[in-house]
Amino acid sequence: MTQLDTYIVEHKEQFLEDLQQWLRIPSISTLPEHAEDMRHAATYAADQLRHIGIDEVTLIQTNGHPLVYGEWLKAAGKPTVLLYGHYDVQPVDPVALWDSPPFEPTIRNGNIYCRGACDDKGQAMLVLKALEALLAVNGALPVNIRVLLEGEEEAGGESIDHYVKTYPERLHCDATLICDTHMPTEDIPALISGLRGLLYTEVEVRGARRDLHSGTYGGIAPNPLHALAILISRLKDAEGHLHIPGLYDKLLQPSQIEQEFWRQDPLHFADALRGEMGVAQLTGEVEYPPLERIWTRPTLEVHGIIGGFIGEGAKTVIPAIAKAKISLRLPPDLKSSEVFTLFEQAVKAATPAGVEVAVSYIHGGEGLVVPLDNPAMQAATAALREVFGRDPVYIREGGSIPIAALFKEILGVPVVLMGFGLPDDNIHAPNEKYSLSQFFKGIRVVARFLENMG
Amino acid sequence: MTQLDTYIVEHKEQFLEDLQQWLRIPSISTLPEHAEDMRHAATYAADQLRHIGIDEVTLIQTNGHPLVYGEWLKAAGKPTVLLYGHYDVQPVDPVALWDSPPFEPTIRNGNIYCRGACDDKGQAMLVLKALEALLAVNGALPVNIRVLLEGEEEAGGESIDHYVKTYPERLHCDATLICDTHMPTEDIPALISGLRGLLYTEVEVRGARRDLHSGTYGGIAPNPLHALAILISRLKDAEGHLHIPGLYDKLLQPSQIEQEFWRQDPLHFADALRGEMGVAQLTGEVEYPPLERIWTRPTLEVHGIIGGFIGEGAKTVIPAIAKAKISLRLPPDLKSSEVFTLFEQAVKAATPAGVEVAVSYIHGGEGLVVPLDNPAMQAATAALREVFGRDPVYIREGGSIPIAALFKEILGVPVVLMGFGLPDDNIHAPNEKYSLSQFFKGIRVVARFLENMG
Repeated sequence: MTQLDTYIVEHKEQFLEDLQQWLRIPSISTLPEHAEDMRHAATYAADQLRHIGIDEVTLIQTNGHPLVYGEWLKAAGKPTVLLYGHYDVQPVDPVALWDSPPFEPTIRNGNIYCRGACDDKGQAMLVLKALEALLAVNGALPVNIRVLLEGEEEAGGESIDHYVKTYPERLHCDATLICDTHMPTEDIPALISGLRGLLYTEVEVRGARRDLHSGTYGGIAPNPLHALAILISRLKDAEGHLHIPGLYDKLLQPSQIEQEFWRQDPLHFADALRGEMGVAQLTGEVEYPPLERIWTRPTLEVHGIIGGFIGEGAKTVIPAIAKAKISLRLPPDLKSSEVFTLFEQAVKAATPAGVEVAVSYIHGGEGLVVPLDNPAMQAATAALREVFGRDPVYIREGGSIPIAALFKEILGVPVVLMGFGLPDDNIHAPNEKYSLSQFFKGIRVVARFLENMG
Repeated sequence: MTQLDTYIVEHKEQFLEDLQQWLRIPSISTLPEHAEDMRHAATYAADQLRHIGIDEVTLIQTNGHPLVYGEWLKAAGKPTVLLYGHYDVQPVDPVALWDSPPFEPTIRNGNIYCRGACDDKGQAMLVLKALEALLAVNGALPVNIRVLLEGEEEAGGESIDHYVKTYPERLHCDATLICDTHMPTEDIPALISGLRGLLYTEVEVRGARRDLHSGTYGGIAPNPLHALAILISRLKDAEGHLHIPGLYDKLLQPSQIEQEFWRQDPLHFADALRGEMGVAQLTGEVEYPPLERIWTRPTLEVHGIIGGFIGEGAKTVIPAIAKAKISLRLPPDLKSSEVFTLFEQAVKAATPAGVEVAVSYIHGGEGLVVPLDNPAMQAATAALREVFGRDPVYIREGGSIPIAALFKEILGVPVVLMGFGLPDDNIHAPNEKYSLSQFFKGIRVVARFLENMG
């Protein structure tokens, strides 16, 4: 066992305790009532950075939640790696479906259950613990590092977007590591070769100028909820095809190698996903392999519909206004801002007569294709091999990490997307968890990665 | 001015004060947290009945909210009239749209604003005040009366249904008066010649066994919200046609006279309704006159959709479960229980692959056609003429008053549906109001009606 591994083993309890303290802070970035918790979570991360020996630790004020920054630039002649994570988490509703309180970290069967356990406090904390171990054992880091943690990853990421674009020189580096992704199973490490982008919108439909009684008006009154149903069914049909004119015209053909991998699915991802979902059949565009559908096909999902009466019992209201939260996942070849224009046109064309419609852009982020042939990806590949005993697979992820595209575009450096989540971690859902074994392996991998970079 | 009119004028302040006290009690029958308020509102009505000299006043316990009963049977040889009203009210959300607090009666421009001001506390109270005036002035009533007030009209009416079916002999009478309907304008009195029935359901769609992240699963995951949109759009198209096999087969042809009235719309109801809604065009089945659409055509409305994320900001969840509250208005020739079977079959047939669906019957009530050729309708017609100076119009109402069909079926007596609401009273919506002038005229009409019956 290396000195580094020994340090990690001896400090397991402390590492876990530090993670649990962070997890207890309900840092939900989208809910205004948690503003103070957001500051608390940022401060906690900054204190951790100071404690392990990172220099220049500051909370960078923004128009939203603060960024946490720290650096260690004493490895003369070595490359600089920018380490990214986020300290904000998703909302927790429906709370009733959680087996333990969402902000009380609870260890069961080798997993820690808590909102943020995986996404992304657990993964961000393991990066900090890798730095701690390296500094404690060697008194120095093998490379220069900058750490940048944001608090708006689940809320559009506007502040970090603005900061990176405004001060790219403050983030000067040779590579970035984003630890916010998954492995296919606990035995098969992975590096992400591509991400989908995201466009999140709200569609508001207005009918009469006030709520109406369905007995008196039903038959002649516009019903915004019904209009939304029609509109949504026209935008995406039961076979998963989107009817957004112009959208499919802009898609590029994926590489032969990737298409082959998607068709063969040698790791049986599709079966695993079907099992996790507990469904008999997968939905969507059957003419594309399941992996292509989730990794690079554009999709449209409804996340919630607002309006009318949703309490217990019955109310025969025809609401004046209804809204739908609708997002699209986009392959890297589609710009979210361009798709918004197409989407808005399609919504207007699909809206039935008798109601008015307005589409709001909530947030968007670009997808990414990651080249594999650079020293950073090679260092990451080697680190995963050393700890997991096998080469990583290069897979795409259907989720959106807008910061990855931003780093690539503004900083112009390789973006290593290496994470240790597992498919059943329930991120964005009740009972989010993180495997403790993945947490500790992740610390070792990140330390090795930085050593390999040095 | 008759002695009766003088009494009413001299007691205006007291009548209003009594109404306001009743209105302040938030008797929302569908919300369990208002159970105590329901009892309070029932007790208040019983106290009023005792105060004005009605005998045998009791709260009849039920499995739900109590019935309020009273009788005065001292008019030997005279007919008996059953007077019906309800003391429960609709929920008040969205509260933010109320100009004054929903349970603080506020008088503005000759109207009293409060939840229940019109539907139905205001209309029930005017019946009690007619009894008070007659008893105060004459020391007796011109007919025998029974008063029966329920607390579940907005919640399915199960208890009164059970009571009427179980103890029809306790409600023995020669006619019933239901004061829970509208007039076309404040100058044109109306009697209701028909009502639509109602079927209220909840449709639940289940997809994966847990909520999913749309980045990871979007493209292969069933989305119950999208499935509901497809399903709803298949049940009712953008032109207002229902696709419920068998439903239209069972419709009877309305009478020529009614069809003529609907086509001509001599009182310009459709324009008035369009104006109230503030819309440029009416929606629905353009091949039928607007009055036919709201008065007797079957309709389907979505009242609310539950599931996913509807808070501020963005959450990219694909919910495991979504539900829609869907009701149908039904012409008198369709039985709600039979339509439920057709509806359930249609929902199952319209559900896209990959999700499971279940339909719950929430409540239902039958429609009604009222014959005009009986002494009770003639007494009501005369009373309206005496107070309003013109004959009433005989119109249908699109809303559902299941108790009317029940009285007709079980008690076998004429059902007089005579109310004093106005089309802009905002029942079931924010800023419900009742015209004070209608309230006081209604007292005089009901007193005259009972005198005419005597």
